[in-house]
Amino acid sequence: MSGIWGNNIKVSIFGESHGKGIGIVIDGLVGGITLELDYIKRELQRRVPGKNRLSTSRKEKDTFHILSGYFNNKTTGTPLCAVIYNTDQRSKDYEKAKFMMRPGHADYTGYMKYFGANDYRGGGHFSGRITAPIVFAGAIAKQILEKKNIVIGSHIKSIGYIEEDGFDAVNIKEELLKKLTHKEFPVMDDEKECRMKELILKAKSELDSIGGIIETAVVNLPVGIGSPFFDSIESKLSHILFSIPAVKGIEFGEGFGMTKMKGSQANDEYFIKEDKIKTYTNHNGGILGGISNGMPIIFRTAFKPTPSIGKIQRSIDIEKKENIKMKIEGRHDPCIVPRAIPVVEAATAIGLLDLLIEKDGIGWMI
Amino acid sequence: MSGIWGNNIKVSIFGESHGKGIGIVIDGLVGGITLELDYIKRELQRRVPGKNRLSTSRKEKDTFHILSGYFNNKTTGTPLCAVIYNTDQRSKDYEKAKFMMRPGHADYTGYMKYFGANDYRGGGHFSGRITAPIVFAGAIAKQILEKKNIVIGSHIKSIGYIEEDGFDAVNIKEELLKKLTHKEFPVMDDEKECRMKELILKAKSELDSIGGIIETAVVNLPVGIGSPFFDSIESKLSHILFSIPAVKGIEFGEGFGMTKMKGSQANDEYFIKEDKIKTYTNHNGGILGGISNGMPIIFRTAFKPTPSIGKIQRSIDIEKKENIKMKIEGRHDPCIVPRAIPVVEAATAIGLLDLLIEKDGIGWMI
Amino acid sequence: MSGIWGNNIKVSIFGESHGKGIGIVIDGLVGGITLELDYIKRELQRRVPGKNRLSTSRKEKDTFHILSGYFNNKTTGTPLCAVIYNTDQRSKDYEKAKFMMRPGHADYTGYMKYFGANDYRGGGHFSGRITAPIVFAGAIAKQILEKKNIVIGSHIKSIGYIEEDGFDAVNIKEELLKKLTHKEFPVMDDEKECRMKELILKAKSELDSIGGIIETAVVNLPVGIGSPFFDSIESKLSHILFSIPAVKGIEFGEGFGMTKMKGSQANDEYFIKEDKIKTYTNHNGGILGGISNGMPIIFRTAFKPTPSIGKIQRSIDIEKKENIKMKIEGRHDPCIVPRAIPVVEAATAIGLLDLLIEKDGIGWMI
Amino acid sequence: MSGIWGNNIKVSIFGESHGKGIGIVIDGLVGGITLELDYIKRELQRRVPGKNRLSTSRKEKDTFHILSGYFNNKTTGTPLCAVIYNTDQRSKDYEKAKFMMRPGHADYTGYMKYFGANDYRGGGHFSGRITAPIVFAGAIAKQILEKKNIVIGSHIKSIGYIEEDGFDAVNIKEELLKKLTHKEFPVMDDEKECRMKELILKAKSELDSIGGIIETAVVNLPVGIGSPFFDSIESKLSHILFSIPAVKGIEFGEGFGMTKMKGSQANDEYFIKEDKIKTYTNHNGGILGGISNGMPIIFRTAFKPTPSIGKIQRSIDIEKKENIKMKIEGRHDPCIVPRAIPVVEAATAIGLLDLLIEKDGIGWMI
Repeated sequence: MSGIWGNNIKVSIFGESHGKGIGIVIDGLVGGITLELDYIKRELQRRVPGKNRLSTSRKEKDTFHILSGYFNNKTTGTPLCAVIYNTDQRSKDYEKAKFMMRPGHADYTGYMKYFGANDYRGGGHFSGRITAPIVFAGAIAKQILEKKNIVIGSHIKSIGYIEEDGFDAVNIKEELLKKLTHKEFPVMDDEKECRMKELILKAKSELDSIGGIIETAVVNLPVGIGSPFFDSIESKLSHILFSIPAVKGIEFGEGFGMTKMKGSQANDEYFIKEDKIKTYTNHNGGILGGISNGMPIIFRTAFKPTPSIGKIQRSIDIEKKENIKMKIEGRHDPCIVPRAIPVVEAATAIGLLDLLIEKDGIGWMI
Repeated sequence: MSGIWGNNIKVSIFGESHGKGIGIVIDGLVGGITLELDYIKRELQRRVPGKNRLSTSRKEKDTFHILSGYFNNKTTGTPLCAVIYNTDQRSKDYEKAKFMMRPGHADYTGYMKYFGANDYRGGGHFSGRITAPIVFAGAIAKQILEKKNIVIGSHIKSIGYIEEDGFDAVNIKEELLKKLTHKEFPVMDDEKECRMKELILKAKSELDSIGGIIETAVVNLPVGIGSPFFDSIESKLSHILFSIPAVKGIEFGEGFGMTKMKGSQANDEYFIKEDKIKTYTNHNGGILGGISNGMPIIFRTAFKPTPSIGKIQRSIDIEKKENIKMKIEGRHDPCIVPRAIPVVEAATAIGLLDLLIEKDGIGWMI
Repeated sequence: MSGIWGNNIKVSIFGESHGKGIGIVIDGLVGGITLELDYIKRELQRRVPGKNRLSTSRKEKDTFHILSGYFNNKTTGTPLCAVIYNTDQRSKDYEKAKFMMRPGHADYTGYMKYFGANDYRGGGHFSGRITAPIVFAGAIAKQILEKKNIVIGSHIKSIGYIEEDGFDAVNIKEELLKKLTHKEFPVMDDEKECRMKELILKAKSELDSIGGIIETAVVNLPVGIGSPFFDSIESKLSHILFSIPAVKGIEFGEGFGMTKMKGSQANDEYFIKEDKIKTYTNHNGGILGGISNGMPIIFRTAFKPTPSIGKIQRSIDIEKKENIKMKIEGRHDPCIVPRAIPVVEAATAIGLLDLLIEKDGIGWMI
Repeated sequence: MSGIWGNNIKVSIFGESHGKGIGIVIDGLVGGITLELDYIKRELQRRVPGKNRLSTSRKEKDTFHILSGYFNNKTTGTPLCAVIYNTDQRSKDYEKAKFMMRPGHADYTGYMKYFGANDYRGGGHFSGRITAPIVFAGAIAKQILEKKNIVIGSHIKSIGYIEEDGFDAVNIKEELLKKLTHKEFPVMDDEKECRMKELILKAKSELDSIGGIIETAVVNLPVGIGSPFFDSIESKLSHILFSIPAVKGIEFGEGFGMTKMKGSQANDEYFIKEDKIKTYTNHNGGILGGISNGMPIIFRTAFKPTPSIGKIQRSIDIEKKENIKMKIEGRHDPCIVPRAIPVVEAATAIGLLDLLIEKDGIGWMI
């Protein structure tokens, strides 16, 4: 079981990188939401590869087809299914390497879990390509949230050791977040941006790859969303964020940094001013007891370096059961972080929408 | 909705710190498992406060009463409910401070979510005390896992800035893990242990608190457990681990450290020896594509400093809507980390049991 | 897995007839609902045995203890757990018959499912006694529904071959439904009531038992509740109603009778009058496409005769693997139907509440 | 929420009658199951209209396209999505009648639930056509069950008042069940078959429709499947069966007939012979306490007459808010029962597979 998530909004993803298509069914959308299809296209466009030298030169168009749940430009309220058909795969390439287990990929674990029956071509269902349907659903969730003024945005906090300052957790502005979503490489400090790009190109030239950290913020989320324990905002968001391939760590607010603090530093003290309750600091990232406190939600997601590298690596042939050396052919992303940003934001939007509906019902959406 | 978790094993927690009792219903245990009640007692004992100077002087006995699902020393296969009745609370103390929102606690968010109807005494349902039932359920899950040779163990990786080396991710031994579970303050390096304890006592003497990081390992988990996407090991474990109050970050394998690596460093290369497939390194923490690869599972959980501190803090009175200064009375933990270890392990055991049953059914348990 | 039900309101039941107690955890109630405990007592009182000659002479007090989720006479919004402790069981009686499989009971199926580990005393978890916690939860759900003017009521449609007319499906009044809930033996036709009671007493005198049909109506349910397919009102209600021991059939509206009709008879034609849309007839029981149409919800639940009878029956000894003759000792209900009514209504209330929250969120409850 | 069902196998349906396509995602199939596509085609063929005079003359080909989860003739273990694209709809026909609420259909309830945004053409998501994907999933479930020797079959128990004898609940043979699945109009008694067909043609000639009852049996289901309460076989099957449009009643074993019995008649007495435990009778339909007892599972499903009839009916125009008379144009099924049989069997197979996996895990499937 792997492809269904959510309590109030349920998404059901499917597809393999080199199969007929990939897609998603979204169940629980209220009837009557006018969808901006251009918004969805833009979000998918943020994820597609091949736009510049920093990503793989592979081209994927990610044209979506809505099969159901959408009529006269509006959601019908019944399950909405969208499919992105796969085109132009070079599937034959994978035949000869099918028993070579690429290090850092899910080849071996997939082989073992599925008794060798999984589609090995291009990672199959494990491919990062399966995140495109999540971006599709996220683009719908984001539209719904934005009508309520809830805005999500992200910047690249670091690539390798090159790191820029984090968001101003107390005063972050929605204009900044919106601006960042329009940048192809959303970094706030131009000099750091330059150095990050250089580092990625260097990794590329070395037939290697590099990881990085995405920092995400959500503003205007109402107070009182989420629950203690199993439906905490942290629980729900981490569940869906760790579903994104290559994510190996998540922290909310100051996160791991809070472990170095004293309580007197970490506690966000309250004040009331003009009837609005706020905190002086926001080390807790807008969440206390699993519930939003009205301050910006802040979290960081750690992405490992793309496992597909051009260097020769030691591995095994799972059929012959012998040690081998292998070189992964093809066009790879030297760093997945820039393309992962819309995926992180989509997952965040889906996760928050699920929690928002709990409180106010599906009627809240319109 | 907050108190139910799991697909194959479902736990349903309930209770407030100062109500009649706290407890858990476990649904999905197979009939016929012989339970060692002493094992459960030991695990609960690891969590109880008041054992030494490092924790609060509050005494809680955490005596559990199994109301159902257990007959003739065995599970019956029907829902198992256990209750820990609350005793000796000083509930009156809370009356006067009921509208003072303690910084870093869930007082304000709980008040807003529950329209002021939540039980504010001692944190109510947000209290860390509610983790005792999770430890109870975890103690059952751990027994089941250990019969299959799957062993979970943890050490304190850091308290504040005092940090010891992590586990040897490739060669960690189950003897070490078992030994650590018997230590009250499980640190591997004696000198670091000393300094960590000093730091906690210093925070205590300053009426302050301090955070820390727990590193956990699981050995002998079979290959092929977990799924890509929403039932990845990372997704499932992070969901349940972030349910634990005060957790603000989780990372698997090298986690955030992997973002600084190149692919050629981060990829765990395979080798086969005597028919066993292993990796030379274990930066991925035993998980690829959300699925176990047979190497030890490794992850770290970040705990913020206890928000209850004796220092004067700025806050608000939610009823009067005015700014106040407040001092939290009572006996507090200067550092929650040592007592949180059995909770982290319990959550891990419950999470993994849920995934293990998916593959082999409830019959696997006996 | 057996004890948890619901999407938006989740109930988690536990307990065995002769264990320490039985109970329920209700997750998803909004904070701030004032509960009338006397209402809950009355509902439980409708179910308890021993009130008259028509039921078993066994006495059960069914005193409930709320352990959590309830504070200052209001729900807190966190999981509400209630326990009914078992008292005065004659458990020893069951020891000698533990391997004798009572016909019509779940002794054999339970033994096989739970590998002989289930609590066999008094039916254990299969006991009708486990419906008391459902009545508890239903009494809360009913209170919430009644504040919205949604009223549930039932009458005994038949006992054996003695049958009275059904509800007037188009014009049923909420006064009638309320009146019926106050009757110990809710039959509308006095003469039929008399004959039904006689039939039960006759069965009792013959050491036998008899079945019957309960007809239930719900008025003032808003239009638009429920969904096509898996969350149809019929799907949801039948799921929870078939959970009640001894239920073997359910039909909505004219149900099986509709199979004898032509479309021109069965279709409920619409009319609009003073801006209200209604149907001339109500053969569909207020549900079309799984969704409420504003007409009364009507359904009938078939209860088999109590399997516990005093007559000698053929059976097997499961340990000795031999054919036996057996006589069930003890005090039995000659007919479970009158005591089952509050259980049916409770299950209905829980089921409808779950669907109502989907639309309007938990905030709808207050 | 309406389109997702199951705990261990999850199906997610989507589509509208006149949209781009209808389909299903099946999550939880183990990797490595060889699928017979011809088997699936045959099952879909049993459901398609237009085969004879007894059904609508509308033609639907129901050609399915597997988009994912299937590779080299085997399931991959990842979500399997199949789509049936819609072709040749005469959608324009529906435009003029869009505000006329067809009696007995979900036009009005759908309009109200979805705020008028639902796809009204041909019933949209409420169309019986959406059961084709259920038949698709059922055809996979049936293949898995049949490899374990578990066989499902049905006959038409009645059309209107014409009724044939039921199955021999104790001795039903799997050969009979298989034979029935190959009949287009599966009735055991030839004379009754003749009269049933005549009745349907008569209804057709009168521009009317007629209902009927399907009786279904399952043989060789192992003992011990299902659970008490919420995962009882009755609960699970009724949930999914009531999802089928036009179903208004379900009874297991003797069902409503049991309400007329005494306990001494209804109880199925046990005997053991050559180490096999059986019952002399099977009034309980193979289920006790929600769990299978090894006897054939027997149940009956009541279908109302097709609401689409050619006669003039009274109704309303929902936009103009006025009373109207309307005549439904187009080609309709005078009786849906024959085409509903594969749907009932598919739902049964999915429901039982879900319960079977609970016990033995997904590995049981291969």
